[in-house]
Amino acid sequence: MAKESTTIDVGEPSTVTKSSSHVVKDAKKKGFVAVASRGGAKRGLAIFDFLLRLAAIAVTIGAASVMYTAEETLPFFTQFLQFQAGYDDLPAFQYFVIAVAVVASYLVLSLPFSIVSIVRPHAVAPRLILLICDTLVVTLNTSAAAAAASITYLAHNGNQSTNWLPICQQFGDFCQNVSTAVVADSIAILFFIVLIIISAIALKRH
Amino acid sequence: MAKESTTIDVGEPSTVTKSSSHVVKDAKKKGFVAVASRGGAKRGLAIFDFLLRLAAIAVTIGAASVMYTAEETLPFFTQFLQFQAGYDDLPAFQYFVIAVAVVASYLVLSLPFSIVSIVRPHAVAPRLILLICDTLVVTLNTSAAAAAASITYLAHNGNQSTNWLPICQQFGDFCQNVSTAVVADSIAILFFIVLIIISAIALKRH
Repeated sequence: MAKESTTIDVGEPSTVTKSSSHVVKDAKKKGFVAVASRGGAKRGLAIFDFLLRLAAIAVTIGAASVMYTAEETLPFFTQFLQFQAGYDDLPAFQYFVIAVAVVASYLVLSLPFSIVSIVRPHAVAPRLILLICDTLVVTLNTSAAAAAASITYLAHNGNQSTNWLPICQQFGDFCQNVSTAVVADSIAILFFIVLIIISAIALKRH
Repeated sequence: MAKESTTIDVGEPSTVTKSSSHVVKDAKKKGFVAVASRGGAKRGLAIFDFLLRLAAIAVTIGAASVMYTAEETLPFFTQFLQFQAGYDDLPAFQYFVIAVAVVASYLVLSLPFSIVSIVRPHAVAPRLILLICDTLVVTLNTSAAAAAASITYLAHNGNQSTNWLPICQQFGDFCQNVSTAVVADSIAILFFIVLIIISAIALKRH
């Protein structure tokens, strides 16, 4: 009885081999082993994804708060004027704070999807959602970092042609904080690129 | 006769529904049709991808050349000084020209991979390569656009806190050209986001 059922089992794949559906045969034959090992690799990727997101949250919150608290008041003042520099003096830095805060919030909200990918490594929908949203958010993050970086460059070096004088000689600490925030956010961009590549590879292995 | 064949057709799915391998059954039964229609959908996506790349090439070359040729000489001059503004007066605009030219070159080089995706819609490797490279290049493109945009904003509005005066009152045409280039490049960023989403969906349907 058992032998009979075995011959039926073996016979079935061989007839299928003649048909063109090669993948279906493989999936049936190697079945559980292949699914399990692929699931392991996918779960590994998903765990790495989750850890990267945690790191990116830390980096973006750090960048946004360093920029937000960057402020310097010079120790001398005239009757009418106190010399002070803050992130809200320059629109590019305001944009940086808002955009990076949005990115950090998005990363927190994306954690559940990342957890779903760990629990169910073969689910395609959360992966695709993460990839598309990551792509949108990385452009937001890059634009914030680049806008702030170009203003920071100007603050350091000034520009002779347009007669914009550097302000970092006066506001050294402010410029240093701002530069730190920009560099931290650039690291977050690298994290995002790795996250997108992970999602793409996980989708491919489906 | 026709009626009989209809009853058989209706009967078959109801027995198979009892078994758990719903997808395998579908693949076996619809077999060739399913593969062909998926191939068709993928090919459609690949053709759309190719056309988007052509449009993005046009837009990025346009943006880079508008920025490169943006130049204005004021009709008055002193003994020592002629008032002139060009893209090479501001590092952010120089970066824009170089980065967008690199992006346009990348897009031209990516066309063969896009053509391979049209000819062989089920090939995974070119899709994955395109997705990863597109992700890298979209950050380059976004950084160029954002850096130039923040300087353009400054040129239009100036900044009172840092005493950077607007230059667009003098160099109106220059500012307009520069703004055009930034807007065109922003459209290219949208194209890139769509390209990445297309690649992700094509990978998913594998």
